[in-house]
Amino acid sequence: MRGILIKGNENKAKYFIREVGGKKPVFICAIGSSEVGKIPGISAAGKNPELTDYTPPADVELLLYGRCKCIDSVPVTPEGIPTPALITMSALELANIPIFIVAGGLRIKPHAPFIDLGGMHGGDIRKGLAVANVKEIMERAELIGKMFAKFSDYLVIGESMPGGTTTTLAILLAMGIDAMGKVSSSMPNNPHNLKIKVVEEGMKAIGIKFGDFKNDPIKAISHLGDPMIPAFSGLILGAGEEIPILMAGGTQMVAILAIVSAINNKVLKNLFIGTTRWLIEDKSSDLLGIVKQIHDLGILIANLDFSTSKYEGLRMYEKGFVKEGVGAGGAAIAAILKSKGKITPKILLKRIEENYERLMNI
Amino acid sequence: MRGILIKGNENKAKYFIREVGGKKPVFICAIGSSEVGKIPGISAAGKNPELTDYTPPADVELLLYGRCKCIDSVPVTPEGIPTPALITMSALELANIPIFIVAGGLRIKPHAPFIDLGGMHGGDIRKGLAVANVKEIMERAELIGKMFAKFSDYLVIGESMPGGTTTTLAILLAMGIDAMGKVSSSMPNNPHNLKIKVVEEGMKAIGIKFGDFKNDPIKAISHLGDPMIPAFSGLILGAGEEIPILMAGGTQMVAILAIVSAINNKVLKNLFIGTTRWLIEDKSSDLLGIVKQIHDLGILIANLDFSTSKYEGLRMYEKGFVKEGVGAGGAAIAAILKSKGKITPKILLKRIEENYERLMNI
Repeated sequence: MRGILIKGNENKAKYFIREVGGKKPVFICAIGSSEVGKIPGISAAGKNPELTDYTPPADVELLLYGRCKCIDSVPVTPEGIPTPALITMSALELANIPIFIVAGGLRIKPHAPFIDLGGMHGGDIRKGLAVANVKEIMERAELIGKMFAKFSDYLVIGESMPGGTTTTLAILLAMGIDAMGKVSSSMPNNPHNLKIKVVEEGMKAIGIKFGDFKNDPIKAISHLGDPMIPAFSGLILGAGEEIPILMAGGTQMVAILAIVSAINNKVLKNLFIGTTRWLIEDKSSDLLGIVKQIHDLGILIANLDFSTSKYEGLRMYEKGFVKEGVGAGGAAIAAILKSKGKITPKILLKRIEENYERLMNI
Repeated sequence: MRGILIKGNENKAKYFIREVGGKKPVFICAIGSSEVGKIPGISAAGKNPELTDYTPPADVELLLYGRCKCIDSVPVTPEGIPTPALITMSALELANIPIFIVAGGLRIKPHAPFIDLGGMHGGDIRKGLAVANVKEIMERAELIGKMFAKFSDYLVIGESMPGGTTTTLAILLAMGIDAMGKVSSSMPNNPHNLKIKVVEEGMKAIGIKFGDFKNDPIKAISHLGDPMIPAFSGLILGAGEEIPILMAGGTQMVAILAIVSAINNKVLKNLFIGTTRWLIEDKSSDLLGIVKQIHDLGILIANLDFSTSKYEGLRMYEKGFVKEGVGAGGAAIAAILKSKGKITPKILLKRIEENYERLMNI
């Protein structure tokens, strides 16, 4: 299919394209916030670390309303590069795909309707206390996943969770997956050393080492995760035995994959990853390498190309800024598939530029 | 169709049966709580007035989990007759219909996932201050309705809102509809005089008389409504131009109908009411008489008959207790239609009795 590349288990990726082409997906954005996003240098999902609490609600407002409400403009990196929610919104809008928000735990609530799972803003994993009531959040998300599976063709699930690649690293190491230096970053210079330091501090605080939580995904999230993870995982556990799910994201998807495969491996047959070319081409992370340590999934890649964009803020995506997030790659793939290829990367870029102009008052 | 009677505009009711038979509905329960439910003598939706805050969350827990969590048993009337959510749950379970909860404003949150519209517990209409941020709640519900309309065949919307027939009376009188002595009650002796006194006190507090809010539905809700009304109305405003909606309830549906028809009468073509025989046979209320003052809708009636039940708590429904609520009639109709009549009132009663035994530890 034009605009979609494949990697990982290519047969499975082709199967997904055949299976869901022309069908109607539902896009769900799982969100959360935590103190990890506010550790200086960890996340570029906000103009400064303190603002990262506003990024998930602002992202989903953008998806639902085409503009943010809890902040004046759109979330940007410290360099002023716009949130990938701009891509997601444009793709879902073009393809008329319904959107639901599921909140695992937030400090700032979106000015928008969302599915509340009863969770809270996450802690600082350096202290080894990350998410309260993991089981409850996961069980409620599972129920929601079950409900969607009763009447949806397939799900595309994205996330907005500042600091999420650091908690991903923590979860993966705790569960015995070699992820050191392999998780992605929204910055062009991936702060691997800082992430490793944060994770090691957290593991030390609770007295565990590599692999100690291999069979205890709930403990891994409770001590080292973030509130988005049980929400996203629960959705998969609820829907994944029944319908295909495109996990829309970068290396954070692997933490989810580790969690769900430790709880119910019957969902694996229905799981696929959808991401962006920028994420796959990134030299400072290794999505494929960590995915295959868990399961040989089909991976679909939105072949977006912003190099010819009129706007520098968008061209910067080609230089390794942002790369992925808020399900951008998966949403683009879903738009292409739902339209049977009528929506192309070129058409997507045009709509993204139009929305960028409107939002930035250019 | 066996098990479904029709009234109102019978051609429209027949059209609905033909149109949605065999298709897949989504059931949405709109909930709220307010100080009106706690006025002594107003509501039987709880063992005592103070407990009515727990009834909506307990009802939706019953729908989603088959048991209540925020209270020990199930909501009952002061006489111990079980909530109609027992009927709704049994019908939706038999027909495998997905369920979503939309909260307009609550004091007690369900121990279950729900769509939060950002509203608050409602006030006492005797003071003329009922619902804050009506527009916001309605607009968020509208967005949710729009999303469901993109991928659902039709919606069945029920409610759990203690004190709801009193706020219904207030809304209808304020909007110029002759509803005096015509709204229903969960009690066998409908406390019309008390309801009228409460409503008159509220209208006096804000200095209005019959019909003054005819063209101002938002003000009517703000001063005299409850938080369920903007949630339910918004869902209809969002979905009702696109797909059929079965408004599942008794006279409270008429307040919603008055609101939505004042805002966008293009939704009327897709609106139908689904209720129970007990509600239609009730001599102390007049659903048909107030509906037709607004619009000539098709009305479907679940022909449930509990007179042969093993359990007195259920037989009491035949004596005018409870009658309707939590979308019981509409859920039964949806189960019958989805199964193309394979689910009969007899099969429904059997499942209701099984669930009653389990919940009451008989």
